[in-house]
Amino acid sequence: MSDQRFAQRMLGMSGNVIREILKLTQEPDVISFAGGLPSPESFPADALREITERLLRGPLEGLLQYSTSEGFPPLRELIAARSNQAGIKAGPDNVLILTGSQQGIDLAAKALLDPGDVVLVEEPTYLAALQIFQLYQAKIVPVPGDASGMDMAALDEAIAKHNPKIIYVIPTFRNPSGETWSHDRREDLARRAARSGAYVVEDDPYGALRYDGQALPPVKAFDEAGRVVYLGSFSKIISPGLRVGYAVAAPDLLRRMVIGKQATDVHTSNLSQRLVYEFCASGLLEPHLERVRKIYGEKRDAMLAAIERCFPAGAQWTRPQGGLFIWARLADGISTEKLLPIAVERERVAFIPGSPFYVDGSGANTMRLNFSNASIDGINEGIARLGRVLERALASA
Amino acid sequence: MSDQRFAQRMLGMSGNVIREILKLTQEPDVISFAGGLPSPESFPADALREITERLLRGPLEGLLQYSTSEGFPPLRELIAARSNQAGIKAGPDNVLILTGSQQGIDLAAKALLDPGDVVLVEEPTYLAALQIFQLYQAKIVPVPGDASGMDMAALDEAIAKHNPKIIYVIPTFRNPSGETWSHDRREDLARRAARSGAYVVEDDPYGALRYDGQALPPVKAFDEAGRVVYLGSFSKIISPGLRVGYAVAAPDLLRRMVIGKQATDVHTSNLSQRLVYEFCASGLLEPHLERVRKIYGEKRDAMLAAIERCFPAGAQWTRPQGGLFIWARLADGISTEKLLPIAVERERVAFIPGSPFYVDGSGANTMRLNFSNASIDGINEGIARLGRVLERALASA
Repeated sequence: MSDQRFAQRMLGMSGNVIREILKLTQEPDVISFAGGLPSPESFPADALREITERLLRGPLEGLLQYSTSEGFPPLRELIAARSNQAGIKAGPDNVLILTGSQQGIDLAAKALLDPGDVVLVEEPTYLAALQIFQLYQAKIVPVPGDASGMDMAALDEAIAKHNPKIIYVIPTFRNPSGETWSHDRREDLARRAARSGAYVVEDDPYGALRYDGQALPPVKAFDEAGRVVYLGSFSKIISPGLRVGYAVAAPDLLRRMVIGKQATDVHTSNLSQRLVYEFCASGLLEPHLERVRKIYGEKRDAMLAAIERCFPAGAQWTRPQGGLFIWARLADGISTEKLLPIAVERERVAFIPGSPFYVDGSGANTMRLNFSNASIDGINEGIARLGRVLERALASA
Repeated sequence: MSDQRFAQRMLGMSGNVIREILKLTQEPDVISFAGGLPSPESFPADALREITERLLRGPLEGLLQYSTSEGFPPLRELIAARSNQAGIKAGPDNVLILTGSQQGIDLAAKALLDPGDVVLVEEPTYLAALQIFQLYQAKIVPVPGDASGMDMAALDEAIAKHNPKIIYVIPTFRNPSGETWSHDRREDLARRAARSGAYVVEDDPYGALRYDGQALPPVKAFDEAGRVVYLGSFSKIISPGLRVGYAVAAPDLLRRMVIGKQATDVHTSNLSQRLVYEFCASGLLEPHLERVRKIYGEKRDAMLAAIERCFPAGAQWTRPQGGLFIWARLADGISTEKLLPIAVERERVAFIPGSPFYVDGSGANTMRLNFSNASIDGINEGIARLGRVLERALASA
C-alpha cells in the first residue's frame, strides 16, 4: 500500500530534525551544540530524590489512580500565583497542566486551526512549532522584525492581509536566536491581538533563565481581551524528562484545550506533576534557579568568547541575555546543512543548521548553537573544532 | 469574540462525558460504577515503592534528561517480547511508547484521517474513541454485530460502500459491553483489512484481565499485511496515573505516529516508563495479574449476582469473561440519562448512561456498570440502590 492512505497532513513530514540529530550525536566523542538539552549538572537530582522518598512514605493511591485532565489542583494554584507575580491576571481555573509545554502549541492549534488558516510567526522560529502548524495544515506566514521583536507595521499589514487565527511568538530568549522582545512591542502585540481577534500563542520556556538585564513582563500581562495563551515549562528549569508544562488562557479557549487533552493523553503523569509541585512548594525553585542561571551564564560567556576567538571573519552572532542558544550567520554561500555531516564526521562537533527554523527553508548560512549542555571545556574545544570546519569551508568556497 | 474563531473540529464538542461524571461522583458517599477506574487495592504500591527507591539510588541523569520519542529501548524490547508471546510478529522497532494507550488512537487518527474519511466502529463502543474521531472530522459509521463481534457480511458491505480508512475495534472485553470477539471473526477482520487497505485500530486495554475461558489471539496476530495497529496499556494492570501505553504497528505507519508524537508531547515521562519497565522486567507483572484477576473476578461475580437479585424484570445484561464492565439494557422507554441525576441525588449511586457510546446517541435505555472500582460491599449496596431507582422508574413509566 502506498502513502496515499495516510492523511494529507503527513505529506512531506519528515520528522523533527532536532530529534533526528539528537540520535546521531549521542556518540560520546561528539561535542554537541545541537539539542536544546539542559545541562545534567543543572538537574536538582538530590532534591528530587528526597521529595520522591517523602512521597513514597505517604499513601500512593492518589498518585497511581486516574486524575483530572486539567491537572493536580495545588500545582494549578501554584502556577496561577507565580503567573500573578509576573503580572498575569489568572486564577487556577485559567491553568491547564500539560505533558510538556509543546503540548500547549499542539492543543491551541487543535482548538483554533482549520486547514488553510493563517499562523503568523517570527523568523527564524522554533522548528517544532512550524511542524505542529504544518500538521494542522495551516498557512504559515513569517512577519519581518529585528532583534527587539516583530516589526509592528509589518504585523499590521500581515493581520490586514491574512486575518490570522494565531500569532506564535517566543518573546523571551527566542529559540533559535536568543533575542528578546522589547517592553513596547509586547504591549503592542497584545493590543493588536485584542483588536484583530487573533490569538497570541506566547511560548516561554526560557523566561526564567535570564543572566543579564531586567526581566520584562510577558505579553500575557497586557492581555485585557483574553486573546493570549501563555505556555510555560518546567523542562529547562527542573527536568525535561518529567514532561510537565502548563498553559494559562481565558476560559473559553482553555476549555477547548482541555477537550483536546482528554482526547489524547487524558492527563499528565501524576508522579511528574507531584514532583514538580513539591519542588516548587518547598521553596526550592528560586535557589535552584540562581544556581542554574550562574552555570548557564558562565557557559554563555565561554561560548561567546570562544566564538570571538575561533570563528572566521564575516561571521555574525547574537549575544543573548538568557536562554540556551546563540545564533550565528556565516558568509553568504556557506551551507550549514552541508557542513553538518563534515563537522560531525571529521571534527566530532555538532550544531543545528538554520534552515528548518525558516518557513521557506532559507537561512542556509545560519546555525543554532546550544551552550547549556556541554561543559565549559567542551565549549572551548567544540567551538575551536567548529572554527576549523568554518575556516576550511571558507577557504574552499 | 464568538465561537466562530475556534476550529470546525470543536463544534458540538462538549468534553468527555466520562471525565465530567468522574468529577461529579467524587463525593465520598456516592457509590460510583461510572468510571473505568481500577481498584485502589489493585495497585502494586509496595512494589512500585521498592522499585522507585532502587531507581533513586542510581544516577538520575537519564531519568531527568530528554529522551527519544519512540520510548525507553528496554521497554520497547520487553513489549515486543510480550507481543511475540501473544502471537504478534514484532520487534522493538515496531513499538512506540505512548502517554497512555488512548494517545495511540489519537496518533493513528492523526496519521490516517482527513476530514470526511470514514471510520467503521462497533456499537456500542468507547466514547472517547468516538470523540477522537470526531475531532479529526471523520464520518463515523457503525457496523452491526452480535456478542461475538462485527457481522462480517455487514462489514463487507460497509467496506464496499465507504472505503474506510480505519476500522476501530476493542475485540476483548469490549468497552462498554464487556463482550469478546470470536477467534474466527478476529481472523476474518485482519483478512478484510489486508484486502481493503483499511487500517484496523485494535484497542486492547483489558486483554490481560480474563477471569474465565480461554485467551484468544489478538487481531494483530493475523496481520500479514501490516494493516493492524495494536494498542496496549499498563493503566488497567499496573496504574493509570503513570500514563504508559504502547502501539505495535508496521514501520510506515509507526513512523508517522512518531512524527505525531514528536509534535505533541515529545516523549512519555521517563520515570513512568522506567517504573513500568522495572516492574515487568523484575517478573512482578504475572503474579500481580493473578492477584488482580482474582479480585476483579470476584467483583464481577458479586455484581452479576446483585443485578440478578435487584434489577427489575425486563432488564438484560452481559456476563463478561473479563475486563471492567457490565452492560445493561432496561425496558424500552426508560432513559438512563434522565435517571442518572436522580440516582446520584436520591440514592447516591452512579453509572454511565449508554447513549454516548452510540454514534447517533441512541441506546437511551442502556447503561454501563464498572465493577472494578467499588468494594464488594459497595457493589452489593450500590446495585441494591440502583435496583430501587429502576423499580421506581418502571412504576412511574
